[in-house]
Amino acid sequence: MRGKHKDFVRIQGAVLLILAAAMTIPFILALCYGEKTSAAAFGSVICFCLLAGMLIRIIIKPSPENFKSRDGFFVVSLTWLVCSLVGAAPFVISGAIPSLADAIFESCSGFSTTGASILSDIEALPKSILFWRSFTHWLGGMGIVVFVMALLPALGISGQMVAYAETPGPIKDKVTARFSDTAKGLYRLYIGLTAAEAILLRIGGMSWYDAFLHTFGTVGTGGFSNYNSSVAHFTSPYIQIVIIVFMVLAGMNFNLFYVGIIQKHGLKTVFRDDETKFYLSAMGVATLAIFIYNNIMDGFRHAGGTLLSAAFQVASVTTTTGYATDDFDLWPTFSKMVIFAMFFFGGCSGSTGGGIKCVRMLVCLKLLRRSFSLKIHPNRVVSLSLNGKELSAEVVIKITNFVFTYIAVLFAGTMLLSFNNMDFVSTLSAAASCLGNIGPGFNLVGPTMNYAGLTDFSKYVCSFLMLAGRLELFTVFTLFSKYYWNSNRV
Amino acid sequence: MRGKHKDFVRIQGAVLLILAAAMTIPFILALCYGEKTSAAAFGSVICFCLLAGMLIRIIIKPSPENFKSRDGFFVVSLTWLVCSLVGAAPFVISGAIPSLADAIFESCSGFSTTGASILSDIEALPKSILFWRSFTHWLGGMGIVVFVMALLPALGISGQMVAYAETPGPIKDKVTARFSDTAKGLYRLYIGLTAAEAILLRIGGMSWYDAFLHTFGTVGTGGFSNYNSSVAHFTSPYIQIVIIVFMVLAGMNFNLFYVGIIQKHGLKTVFRDDETKFYLSAMGVATLAIFIYNNIMDGFRHAGGTLLSAAFQVASVTTTTGYATDDFDLWPTFSKMVIFAMFFFGGCSGSTGGGIKCVRMLVCLKLLRRSFSLKIHPNRVVSLSLNGKELSAEVVIKITNFVFTYIAVLFAGTMLLSFNNMDFVSTLSAAASCLGNIGPGFNLVGPTMNYAGLTDFSKYVCSFLMLAGRLELFTVFTLFSKYYWNSNRV
Repeated sequence: MRGKHKDFVRIQGAVLLILAAAMTIPFILALCYGEKTSAAAFGSVICFCLLAGMLIRIIIKPSPENFKSRDGFFVVSLTWLVCSLVGAAPFVISGAIPSLADAIFESCSGFSTTGASILSDIEALPKSILFWRSFTHWLGGMGIVVFVMALLPALGISGQMVAYAETPGPIKDKVTARFSDTAKGLYRLYIGLTAAEAILLRIGGMSWYDAFLHTFGTVGTGGFSNYNSSVAHFTSPYIQIVIIVFMVLAGMNFNLFYVGIIQKHGLKTVFRDDETKFYLSAMGVATLAIFIYNNIMDGFRHAGGTLLSAAFQVASVTTTTGYATDDFDLWPTFSKMVIFAMFFFGGCSGSTGGGIKCVRMLVCLKLLRRSFSLKIHPNRVVSLSLNGKELSAEVVIKITNFVFTYIAVLFAGTMLLSFNNMDFVSTLSAAASCLGNIGPGFNLVGPTMNYAGLTDFSKYVCSFLMLAGRLELFTVFTLFSKYYWNSNRV
Repeated sequence: MRGKHKDFVRIQGAVLLILAAAMTIPFILALCYGEKTSAAAFGSVICFCLLAGMLIRIIIKPSPENFKSRDGFFVVSLTWLVCSLVGAAPFVISGAIPSLADAIFESCSGFSTTGASILSDIEALPKSILFWRSFTHWLGGMGIVVFVMALLPALGISGQMVAYAETPGPIKDKVTARFSDTAKGLYRLYIGLTAAEAILLRIGGMSWYDAFLHTFGTVGTGGFSNYNSSVAHFTSPYIQIVIIVFMVLAGMNFNLFYVGIIQKHGLKTVFRDDETKFYLSAMGVATLAIFIYNNIMDGFRHAGGTLLSAAFQVASVTTTTGYATDDFDLWPTFSKMVIFAMFFFGGCSGSTGGGIKCVRMLVCLKLLRRSFSLKIHPNRVVSLSLNGKELSAEVVIKITNFVFTYIAVLFAGTMLLSFNNMDFVSTLSAAASCLGNIGPGFNLVGPTMNYAGLTDFSKYVCSFLMLAGRLELFTVFTLFSKYYWNSNRV
């Protein structure tokens, strides 16, 4: 094993130890609730993780070789793969989700913060298993924001390179200095957001257990609920509004929160950002359009209810959370199309949201506007700017490349899922929803349905799409590229 | 009226005279078949066109001002709009298609060589009207290949600029010299192709009338048939194969035919071209995939039939013709997805086909491949080449801009059509089919269905999408841009 490969394995040793630590919470819960098979499952997986993790850390010494950016891609992908596989183990061992394909799907859906489920009766599962299921969202969201940035520097590897693998969008220049400190600040923000939401939900009448599970699903922009009817289980408008607010916050750029709150530059930093403005406006426009159209089609019978419902569904889809308080599959076609369009926006860069990301959509729209102007005035110089700064050609090319890759992967995923012979809309929306880390799609995979009806092959395809979407495509796909392996061989 | 605007009107005078000349054929046919109301309709439209055209040519003198490229866009768009509106008049006046929205839809579909129809019972229409309906395909196809290039130079305007408005793809350098001669060569090629197909179809047992109508639909990559069951009316494999061959030829680059045949560089010029290779391979792969998959799902019961059927449907959709010998809407989901993917490929640049065009798809795929390589080796220089020549950054940017605009227009069209409250698939596929100049979509607008069920508003949206797709978006959209009018006002 060459030096660099040793480091790859060494990092996974640390990942296993962290998973063991994370699983002690559902383990203790299982003991408290008297869920013996679950406790045994968590116990055995914890033992395996501790043993394997410690063995790896003892046997394999760190190598002095420097990581290149492609190695960063590799480590990030490997970490999410190890988490998803180990995270599936308690589901299978406890018998809660006996099928391997199902358990891997559910675990990938958790760590990728997608929230798509193969469970038809969620409420039948043991409470400790449901806790672990939602906790994977929180860990996955944490992973995106800080996990990798905090873990890797601690292992002696510069975090910036890996962060680059995570955030190909324009990186805020203020966050470059002292990366490890930044990571700790982001850490605190994420935990603070979690605590705030859990307390507010508890105040709204949820039990602590429900409050924490829904908080995990919200701040990780995941979408797993412990109720079959998702958030619709809670009819209180207060609870729904709290969840909307925290979904929207979780879909915003954590780097901006860091600059605004931890570095005390004020919240104006957040709201003056072009991406934030675009993100909030897009959701506002979509909510209003759906609210007005649904009411026109419906004869203005329950306007108040549909404004909250439109806002919840739009926020849920745009932030790629996937909670539901209403079945948007029953809405008129125009409203469904608005929701489907929001499948592609996604959260802001540097958030726990998935999708194409708002900053890329914004740059694409600016590109479109410029191309019209250039058609008419071929010699006029029109530059693209974001937050008052000109974008370099390199950044613009990266963004257009990303969007093309996204479309290509969506196409490939749709093709592979079409072997399942579901209808057109179910197939396309399942692929778009998994790749965008949203959760529900339309028709057979709509908000009141689930992914249980898919073949095992389709479930693996979906699992792959969820991870690919979460790791922003290139991170995963470079591993399959001949360039990666050829250059490592040299 | 300023000088340039005089020229715009003067050109439309010539267009009206050409339309009058074109309508004499269905007028004579109406007299021969004894269709009195149709003859009266054609006669009155011919009189109007002659009068208006000659008045315009006499009153308005050519201005000495030079045309800029944006004026070229304007003239091209105006010409297609005038043709579509005047072409709809015989339908309305004869009472064959009494609704104005329907007649305009059918005429736009004809001149844009789309082939989408609002007619439920085509065979009930008078023969002269059906001839005109198919003849608009031939005129529209001719317009794309040579009409504009031959007409405008005759009016003293350099054709190249307008040609640029038509072919934003990489232009073959060999065709630049002596543009008007080239246009005449292309003219001969188009007529030669028409004659060859009509004779081959006549040999296959069609009447001359049927042979010409289906030839118009094929070489213009239109898709109007005079039978309710489209080409499925003819069960002869010979006829279906002839139509496949000519659809494929009509979807190829006429500039290459010109260089290969008229300039006698040999047919290798055509088949060595990267775009041609990509176009033929894409159709080959799609045909095989559908053939194999349909047979697997079908238990290998009628393999011979499905190979011809798969080839026909793939060629029909890829070349954006839209003829049908089989209802692809009944195929398994995978095969439907392959067909839907081909909705976006389109013909080659410089052909009568619509869609994104193969050369742009090819460049996008090359861009994707390069972006992977760049992710791994950020410092490696990787150039994009086509036919062994490096593509300039400007051409690549134009192509990506085009693709983004295409997606944006498809999105806007889908949104506008969704007010019709058809299902998701019908709405999306109607927009994609009209914008791509194909004709049939899925579900309510599938190959055995038609667009009659749409609201008038939706029919106008579709008409607009067909013209926008035909004129390659920018040509039409620049007219709506503030840049166009602002700079003309200065």
